[in-house]
Amino acid sequence: MEKMKLGIVGFGFMGHCDADMMATFDEIDLVAVADTNPEQLKDAPEGVETYASIDEMLESADINVVMISTPNPSHPEMVKKAAAAKKHVICEKPAAMSVAEFDEMVAACKENHVLFTVHQQRRWDKDYRIMKEVYDKALVGDMYIIKSQLYGVNGNMHDWHVYPEMGGGMLYDWGVHLIDQMLDMVKSEIVSLYADVQNVINEKVDDYFKIIMKFKNGVTAEIELGTYYLTPKRAWFIGGNTGSAMIDGFGGEGKIVRTAHLLENVPGKITMTAAGPTRSFGPPAPGLLSEEALPETDVAHRNYFEHFLKAFHGEEEIVVKPEQVRRVLRVMDSVRESARTGKAIAFEE
Amino acid sequence: MEKMKLGIVGFGFMGHCDADMMATFDEIDLVAVADTNPEQLKDAPEGVETYASIDEMLESADINVVMISTPNPSHPEMVKKAAAAKKHVICEKPAAMSVAEFDEMVAACKENHVLFTVHQQRRWDKDYRIMKEVYDKALVGDMYIIKSQLYGVNGNMHDWHVYPEMGGGMLYDWGVHLIDQMLDMVKSEIVSLYADVQNVINEKVDDYFKIIMKFKNGVTAEIELGTYYLTPKRAWFIGGNTGSAMIDGFGGEGKIVRTAHLLENVPGKITMTAAGPTRSFGPPAPGLLSEEALPETDVAHRNYFEHFLKAFHGEEEIVVKPEQVRRVLRVMDSVRESARTGKAIAFEE
Repeated sequence: MEKMKLGIVGFGFMGHCDADMMATFDEIDLVAVADTNPEQLKDAPEGVETYASIDEMLESADINVVMISTPNPSHPEMVKKAAAAKKHVICEKPAAMSVAEFDEMVAACKENHVLFTVHQQRRWDKDYRIMKEVYDKALVGDMYIIKSQLYGVNGNMHDWHVYPEMGGGMLYDWGVHLIDQMLDMVKSEIVSLYADVQNVINEKVDDYFKIIMKFKNGVTAEIELGTYYLTPKRAWFIGGNTGSAMIDGFGGEGKIVRTAHLLENVPGKITMTAAGPTRSFGPPAPGLLSEEALPETDVAHRNYFEHFLKAFHGEEEIVVKPEQVRRVLRVMDSVRESARTGKAIAFEE
Repeated sequence: MEKMKLGIVGFGFMGHCDADMMATFDEIDLVAVADTNPEQLKDAPEGVETYASIDEMLESADINVVMISTPNPSHPEMVKKAAAAKKHVICEKPAAMSVAEFDEMVAACKENHVLFTVHQQRRWDKDYRIMKEVYDKALVGDMYIIKSQLYGVNGNMHDWHVYPEMGGGMLYDWGVHLIDQMLDMVKSEIVSLYADVQNVINEKVDDYFKIIMKFKNGVTAEIELGTYYLTPKRAWFIGGNTGSAMIDGFGGEGKIVRTAHLLENVPGKITMTAAGPTRSFGPPAPGLLSEEALPETDVAHRNYFEHFLKAFHGEEEIVVKPEQVRRVLRVMDSVRESARTGKAIAFEE
């Protein structure tokens, strides 16, 4: 069986993360790293070849898979070069700045008969996976709302993320993951999409967005992210007609809540609150609410590469498929269009 | 000075609430209550006349103001009768089922030179008033998002609220208040509106809705209510570029949060979380966040009637103005249209 021999192009933040991950796999040899900035190569792992460009690496290194971790706008060029050299390709997200670019990348890989996938490792985030279990098993019945929220307190972006021309901003960063997760969870066509995208602290790139997608199966999904939304959270909420499931935290801390019975129709019975009487929104009666544990999951970002290895060895299909990545990019285009025009987008599947 | 002498028509849940409120005013005499159901009149306060209909009350009782607390669809008829009898009118919300109906009610009151206002007492809710202070004084700088959320656990509606033909459902109930508060707070034109309205537990009436309004001044406002959203809350969030303000509770419990400084650009510095490294969404550094108290307010639903008394005595204008009520009804029409069509509504002011 041929061994997976990897070259990483672009040895910055993600390149280093990816190299660390590779070190945990006996089945993968990290053979080479390439970066046009010699500073980045100084801490390359011992025994790993270093190159000043993808061209030199493709020419000299004994590799069969290339991982692209260069700045976003260079992905198409890098992917096409790797494919032309008959290397399988794993590309960092966002794969491309536009659907048109992405289609060219897919075509290049197809033509050269190499695998092409994108590093959407957050499909193996614990919080997401737990909620996917809730969804798949309909643990809260017929679902009407799914919310995925990510709020941070740091406000501005780091490094090149402040530059639009580098593919900066949060839509291209976490947005890609959050949309990918939602589309991976809700197996239904998008009927309508509405979005708000704002620059709160950053001058040139988005640092807040809200995306609402209504799906054909009746689910409304909402994704909201803010880097200057000062109640830090990684939260999920799934509301269904037999309960609610909620998470706050990357570790998947949360619960399922159910009611023992519905409100009894007692005319004239008033619940007093600090804001006057309300029957619908007074405090829950004792014993009305019960809590259950969320399903257990055992996932890690490592699983992404375990799946890739199987695809590399022909044992299964690529798990993050180009057509899924393309749909995420199309949603991102619609998000921008909706935010710009104030209109809802009738999404064509 | 003429004394305010009140007759209440419709002596159900709200009629009783209103009568209790009147008992706290020396300046108001509750003279009469009317209800077509004799059962409802059994516990009328001592010394208060009872009538079997608005017609009998208008004919016989010595009153100058009528408060309409009958079921929603009867409001237009009741208001027109009271106006024709030259009585000032306070109508329970929702004032009308449609803008067209409302316009007729306004015309009838104008023609008869009587005051007409709607009992939007939740403009004096403590939680709302605190957030209005935050907004008016721009305590968190330029604002990008304002959220008003109300989640309950009781699921189904009570009494006539389950019947669409009685004006049931949550949009007509709390929806009117939540929209009225938001429009009273954000003094700007609505540019675009998008909504989701669902029946989760109830067969025939809405028990979940989300409304997003983008205002001309750059604020995006979101109102969300669910009666079967099992994390009970009365929450507000205002996000601005110098901080965030948040409340959970009708009592106005909450805080303003600010950052001491923004993220420093330290390439390669990784914050590890349960879901892997993230620089933007790791836990806040020690000392990064500081908390401030929310502004103090001293308000009560009683204030609504204090203002009405001043208008009754010609000392000030009516505070809940027909044109404001009309705008809320127009927003509700757009909410339904957006929910039905999946389109955003370009709201014409």
